[in-house]
Amino acid sequence: MAAVELVELWRGGLLESVHRGHVAVCDGAGQVIQAWGDPEAVIFPRSSAKMIQALPLVESGAADAAGLTSEHLALACASHQGAPIHTDRVAAWLSHLGLAEPDLRCGAHMPSDRPTAESLVRAGDRPCQIHNNCSGKHAGFLTLARHLGAGPEYVEIDHPVQQAVRAAAEETAGEASPGWGVDGCSAPNFAGTLAGVARAMASYATAGSRGGVRADAQRRLTAAMIAHPELVAGERRACTDLMRACEGRAAIKTGAEGVFVAILPQQGLGVALKIADGATRASEAVIAALLVRLGVLDAAHPVAERLTAGVQRNWRGIETGRIVTRL
Amino acid sequence: MAAVELVELWRGGLLESVHRGHVAVCDGAGQVIQAWGDPEAVIFPRSSAKMIQALPLVESGAADAAGLTSEHLALACASHQGAPIHTDRVAAWLSHLGLAEPDLRCGAHMPSDRPTAESLVRAGDRPCQIHNNCSGKHAGFLTLARHLGAGPEYVEIDHPVQQAVRAAAEETAGEASPGWGVDGCSAPNFAGTLAGVARAMASYATAGSRGGVRADAQRRLTAAMIAHPELVAGERRACTDLMRACEGRAAIKTGAEGVFVAILPQQGLGVALKIADGATRASEAVIAALLVRLGVLDAAHPVAERLTAGVQRNWRGIETGRIVTRL
Repeated sequence: MAAVELVELWRGGLLESVHRGHVAVCDGAGQVIQAWGDPEAVIFPRSSAKMIQALPLVESGAADAAGLTSEHLALACASHQGAPIHTDRVAAWLSHLGLAEPDLRCGAHMPSDRPTAESLVRAGDRPCQIHNNCSGKHAGFLTLARHLGAGPEYVEIDHPVQQAVRAAAEETAGEASPGWGVDGCSAPNFAGTLAGVARAMASYATAGSRGGVRADAQRRLTAAMIAHPELVAGERRACTDLMRACEGRAAIKTGAEGVFVAILPQQGLGVALKIADGATRASEAVIAALLVRLGVLDAAHPVAERLTAGVQRNWRGIETGRIVTRL
Repeated sequence: MAAVELVELWRGGLLESVHRGHVAVCDGAGQVIQAWGDPEAVIFPRSSAKMIQALPLVESGAADAAGLTSEHLALACASHQGAPIHTDRVAAWLSHLGLAEPDLRCGAHMPSDRPTAESLVRAGDRPCQIHNNCSGKHAGFLTLARHLGAGPEYVEIDHPVQQAVRAAAEETAGEASPGWGVDGCSAPNFAGTLAGVARAMASYATAGSRGGVRADAQRRLTAAMIAHPELVAGERRACTDLMRACEGRAAIKTGAEGVFVAILPQQGLGVALKIADGATRASEAVIAALLVRLGVLDAAHPVAERLTAGVQRNWRGIETGRIVTRL
């Protein structure tokens, strides 16, 4: 099934650009209850899989053995912007493990937090791996590797940490992964169908009504994301703004190349979407529109209005066009 | 007619993202000789229209009256990255007119040239309107406004400068513009069909074989772009790299939201393309593939290889995927 048109950009009364994509909403029974485009499309969830990549950390007992708090769990699920609230906590976490920045395998990039990036430039410093938006996830991988007594090359596909992540991904999605790729942060990323990813999110959403180690771990990770939206992304970022606007009704996570997922515990629903061309501006618009449609975000909330029907302005503040979301 | 798939992004042996679009190639008779997708699709050419926006400047005699050189004409057609080679020349141009930065109406944004942006941050300075990638075009508008004895609000739709631009756009495209929008730099941008934009480019490509004031102006603008590729964009930018790689066989210009045009004087052809979702990574891949296909760019040139089949690497330099261009 082809991707369908989900987002339009208008300028001067004419359609300028269009984004197509796929959306799947799953219930706690694992059924797709609503879809646009093809729910069987194979996608890389990229960073939207972070709460799955953190699942072995919690269910293995590694998180508790290391004394991790809900802040650490939120950072393990984060694509943070490298602001001091993120980097200070990750640095302390590594230090607590008796590890340091060189033990990370995520690589370094400029933080997307502008004040932090500008102070690095002013100081003539370069970013380190702790600034990498995935450094919390990698601190979680290191915590689990330590707990398992496994080696330092924790991003290798056959490392016990990644094999545990693969099992978590396949079991929560209820399907074998059709393949994997290397992510921007060097960790393996396991592909799945969009329906499978939404099903995994639904298993998080319904974890509160199930017993057992896995369900407890899923419930704790969801709660950590909802409790610390500023650690999952950062100020003025869509995940953080949307989680705040949803006031506890959703855990929300973006992934590169136009992916978004949401866990809706009160509805017991899981959501996954992929913009076919990979555009973040479109994935943000569609997730916001879906959250409104599913009743967890007020359509009149400024964040909902900004993302789903954003006015585009130029360098002089003049309105040049609009984003329109078709759901 | 629907947009067709033109560019794929692969990761781990699986297709991750896809870009669709439209392409039109026109000959000197104004006929579409090759197309992908819908050549009648209406697009905003955005900055790819800059050699059209500069046409009244030259054909009116304003450029010669102000003593403009081919460097000025290249800057009038530029989306430059705000490096000193661009900003020094635009500042001198304004000064030569007896004007200054506040006379511009393009707004200010951080230059995309990283050393320049970093030195602004280190100095605690903010960018000014001369850093705007369109400041050369706006200096051209001011030169024409002065020559016409018209007022200072040269980006207003009914200003003589913009009415001259509209006439140039419609006459070279051979069609009435279906509408206009406000561009990022506040100037009006006139929509057209993709075939119309390609036809306009073909009229530049064949200007050398025609006589008259307009053809002479078109020939001079094309020659200025080809003579000064570093002024039209900047180091490590696609337009500059591609024009250098084509060794005088093409004038090439990008526009926001996934547009590219090319003028091929030796073939007498004009090219225009639009990526439906507006992605620059895709428009760069498609223009490079087209230039190879049309015989003006060596497929083995590093710039062609990088843009059409680029290996994607992550923060640690590990290959994560590939761009594949389907033309």
